Amino acid sequence: MYPRKLTRQVISDPDYPVVETKAGKLRGLVVEGAFIFRGIKYAKAKRFHLPEPVEPWEGVKEAIIYGPVSPEFSTGIANDEYNVPHFHYPQDEDCQYINVWTQSIDRNAKKPVMVWIHGGQWVTGSGIELYAYDGEEISAWGDVVFVSLNHRLNVIGYTDFGKYGDEYKYSGNAGLADLVMALEWVRDNIEAFGGDPNNVTIMGQSGGGGKVRALFNTPAADGLYHKAIIQSGAHAGDGDGTLEESQYLAERILAHLNIAPENVKTVEKVPYYKLARAATEAQKDVAEKFGHSFMWGAVKDDEYFLGQPVLYGWRPEVKNIPLIIGTCLGEFDNNYARTLIPKALDDWTEEEKAEQLKAKYGDKADAVVEAFKKAYPGRNTAGALFIGDWYRLGAYEVVARRVKDGCAPTYNYLLTLMAPLNKGTVPWHNMEEAYVFHNAQYLEASYIPGVSEELQDIMTGAWVAFAKTGDPNHAGMPIWHPEDGSAMATMIFDRDTHMVYDHDKELMSFFSGVRATGPRAAVKLGGGPRQSL
Amino acid sequence: MYPRKLTRQVISDPDYPVVETKAGKLRGLVVEGAFIFRGIKYAKAKRFHLPEPVEPWEGVKEAIIYGPVSPEFSTGIANDEYNVPHFHYPQDEDCQYINVWTQSIDRNAKKPVMVWIHGGQWVTGSGIELYAYDGEEISAWGDVVFVSLNHRLNVIGYTDFGKYGDEYKYSGNAGLADLVMALEWVRDNIEAFGGDPNNVTIMGQSGGGGKVRALFNTPAADGLYHKAIIQSGAHAGDGDGTLEESQYLAERILAHLNIAPENVKTVEKVPYYKLARAATEAQKDVAEKFGHSFMWGAVKDDEYFLGQPVLYGWRPEVKNIPLIIGTCLGEFDNNYARTLIPKALDDWTEEEKAEQLKAKYGDKADAVVEAFKKAYPGRNTAGALFIGDWYRLGAYEVVARRVKDGCAPTYNYLLTLMAPLNKGTVPWHNMEEAYVFHNAQYLEASYIPGVSEELQDIMTGAWVAFAKTGDPNHAGMPIWHPEDGSAMATMIFDRDTHMVYDHDKELMSFFSGVRATGPRAAVKLGGGPRQSL
Repeated sequence: MYPRKLTRQVISDPDYPVVETKAGKLRGLVVEGAFIFRGIKYAKAKRFHLPEPVEPWEGVKEAIIYGPVSPEFSTGIANDEYNVPHFHYPQDEDCQYINVWTQSIDRNAKKPVMVWIHGGQWVTGSGIELYAYDGEEISAWGDVVFVSLNHRLNVIGYTDFGKYGDEYKYSGNAGLADLVMALEWVRDNIEAFGGDPNNVTIMGQSGGGGKVRALFNTPAADGLYHKAIIQSGAHAGDGDGTLEESQYLAERILAHLNIAPENVKTVEKVPYYKLARAATEAQKDVAEKFGHSFMWGAVKDDEYFLGQPVLYGWRPEVKNIPLIIGTCLGEFDNNYARTLIPKALDDWTEEEKAEQLKAKYGDKADAVVEAFKKAYPGRNTAGALFIGDWYRLGAYEVVARRVKDGCAPTYNYLLTLMAPLNKGTVPWHNMEEAYVFHNAQYLEASYIPGVSEELQDIMTGAWVAFAKTGDPNHAGMPIWHPEDGSAMATMIFDRDTHMVYDHDKELMSFFSGVRATGPRAAVKLGGGPRQSL
Repeated sequence: MYPRKLTRQVISDPDYPVVETKAGKLRGLVVEGAFIFRGIKYAKAKRFHLPEPVEPWEGVKEAIIYGPVSPEFSTGIANDEYNVPHFHYPQDEDCQYINVWTQSIDRNAKKPVMVWIHGGQWVTGSGIELYAYDGEEISAWGDVVFVSLNHRLNVIGYTDFGKYGDEYKYSGNAGLADLVMALEWVRDNIEAFGGDPNNVTIMGQSGGGGKVRALFNTPAADGLYHKAIIQSGAHAGDGDGTLEESQYLAERILAHLNIAPENVKTVEKVPYYKLARAATEAQKDVAEKFGHSFMWGAVKDDEYFLGQPVLYGWRPEVKNIPLIIGTCLGEFDNNYARTLIPKALDDWTEEEKAEQLKAKYGDKADAVVEAFKKAYPGRNTAGALFIGDWYRLGAYEVVARRVKDGCAPTYNYLLTLMAPLNKGTVPWHNMEEAYVFHNAQYLEASYIPGVSEELQDIMTGAWVAFAKTGDPNHAGMPIWHPEDGSAMATMIFDRDTHMVYDHDKELMSFFSGVRATGPRAAVKLGGGPRQSL
């Protein structure tokens, strides 16, 4: 994806490699023996309408550069740019593009397919947004067909104008429908790229994990995927956007644009930047009316999207889909995000630690530290300040509900490996991607020679094994036990990867209930100034 | 710069590496043994004002992520994205940032310093815009201190509001003044990064080459650099923006923004996107009034900027600065840019070639082909369709003027190596950067195993030798003769790098005078739809 040190000539020939998709022929590249097809248009869409299949074409189209990504309200340098480096790319509402990395273009190869759904809270991001997202290594190492994609975000993806006409009936879930259309494209075309349409794993991190959760309760997606992975993608108390909220949002957007309801069609043609500004104002109106902050996302209309499975249950149609779900130890609360004292964690004095712990936990500080010591023996106790509880408790909730609903196996993990950044940093939101994509050597803030290679063989190995069979276990790691409801069974990924049971239950009890729960709770993101959603 | 496959841990420590600049301490990184400092603020500036030094600070600032780049009117996917891959980055008017790659932070190391000035026609781009711009390899391979930077572009860099108040006197050259300030930063601080402030080479490609030319006639820059390189950066008939044009532009911008002259200060606070739209309209007004298209760039005010040296001569102050100047064979006229027939060049039939040549050259087609054969014996004669004449003739003009002015040695080159893209593509605008930066293995469209390694050792070797001594000759290549006025002496960089003399003089005679010359000639950019300026 990004500049790689090549050892072999890249084949870019008008005649090879060419694959035949349902809509027409595509010409890709052979890079270091792998086949890469970039920027394949998987759907077209009018603004606020459901996506449609692309027009068939004659001849051979190039698929050698990435397609545009969904526009976002503003693009700045993320506060976590160093530890989570970004690859920005030009934005356009014409954003339904998919990328494929594969080791074979034989229709009979039938390799497992892994579909990456990017994060960014349904607001920002793209399938190529982070350095970590590069699919080249995982495809080659795991011999899988790896797919990533862009889809509509924010105001163009999740605003319900249904009140103003039947043609806008699904506008509140237009971006979710793009995802469904991408999965349909995979079903209809992935064989030509050597993939097995009957063995598709959907996976996402952060907002991308939220999208995986949403797909579970999107009937249109039923049957299009067979396994699922949620990385740092379930928050304690996660709720849904309601139809009422989204329709009020649409009403206020029209108002801010001075568009009368009978002229609603005009809103399809408003320049995006104006629409984005109106939406920003309308978000405030929604927050004021409903008493909590507005967040973009799928709209629970009980037709296209049935609401969070953690709240409304896993349906029979998707119960049998196995799931990996897990988090990073620090998430947004890592010590790079919150440099309380401008020196390395291990250089803090006992007094400095005590002062910070007291400031954060008050008279519970000692008890929290004791629980932290039990959960993570031998660790610097300053680590008790950096607990990604919002995500960890979200995983607890998902696991509990799936056990209750009698779902297929659910595997839980926690990445606890300290990164070398600043002589030791608690693992952050997005850090596991380096290990899941077998890209650890490309991420400078977290790479540890020897250790990273070993851990990525374990983690990518587990993800690939899971994509192949639904069971992440492989010979190179300890046995990963799924949840059975008796204890939180967690695979700790670290220098000494191992299983634990209820290891942090006591520690989590200090955080449980701290944040408001329920639909669209006015949650405050954890952590300090550095954060990529 | 971009994701590299690491073999060693990156050192990112609060205490090391730290260098002391004039304004304060900076903390960088040790990556694979090299020291990298990213996003150092070298100046601050109010809109339409000259840049000023940054405020001194206490403590240690991080210099581990890139700084924002100048805003541009719009950011889309370049038509040449495949062969010239881009690294986009967030934009902000706070854009005066510099990056340093070095092998030493010993103040006594005194390594040669190479300052990269990016292209993009004074309108777009940044010091990290292209994959090819990564300074890591050239710094390590050549043991030089490599510097790249961002500065103000387009309307915020080159609009003269001087009529409206003395504080705006230099607003027409604000972005050029940023470049000067960056060179002052190098003079004042580069020793701390192991560099020799008395041995600075400025180098740029395309618009960056234009900036190098402009610096030659910017008295404020005198003494700040000691060698210069212009890659595909001089066009036949290049002129200057005049004060009259730029002041009319400013007048029209105020008009489009409905700002009365007495309220001119308001224009400092207008949101950039509004300013950009007003400027886009004002450009049309300028074109209409002056009868030729408007191009952004330094404004010849005969005080800050004295105009193109190719028109007004090399001054005694800068005559003794040696220069490398050269081009790529196809530039914007390569066969990937103009896929006249959708198949590989070598697969064209004689009839197809004849038809295209006839269409382009009419009854001169046979004569052009004969001249092409003499210039490039043994080549596919379809290549006669893909001559980057606008740039090649620009180099001719610069060489002629420097010989006339009695300047220090001028070395000319031409990259003629066919790229493997589409089974053979004439070298394009930007292609030489892969070889100049020793990054050939990272550029998939042009990489040829074995051949690329050899050629980049020759080219990077020549650039580094030139930066060290002012003479590009080194043991690994044929002798590169400078110009003496008797013939166009050109180093052909290819599989068989060699010198030629007047090799394409006859061929160029068909193009000479084709395009209008003189200040701000209404030149039409060569080539087809694919182009990065």
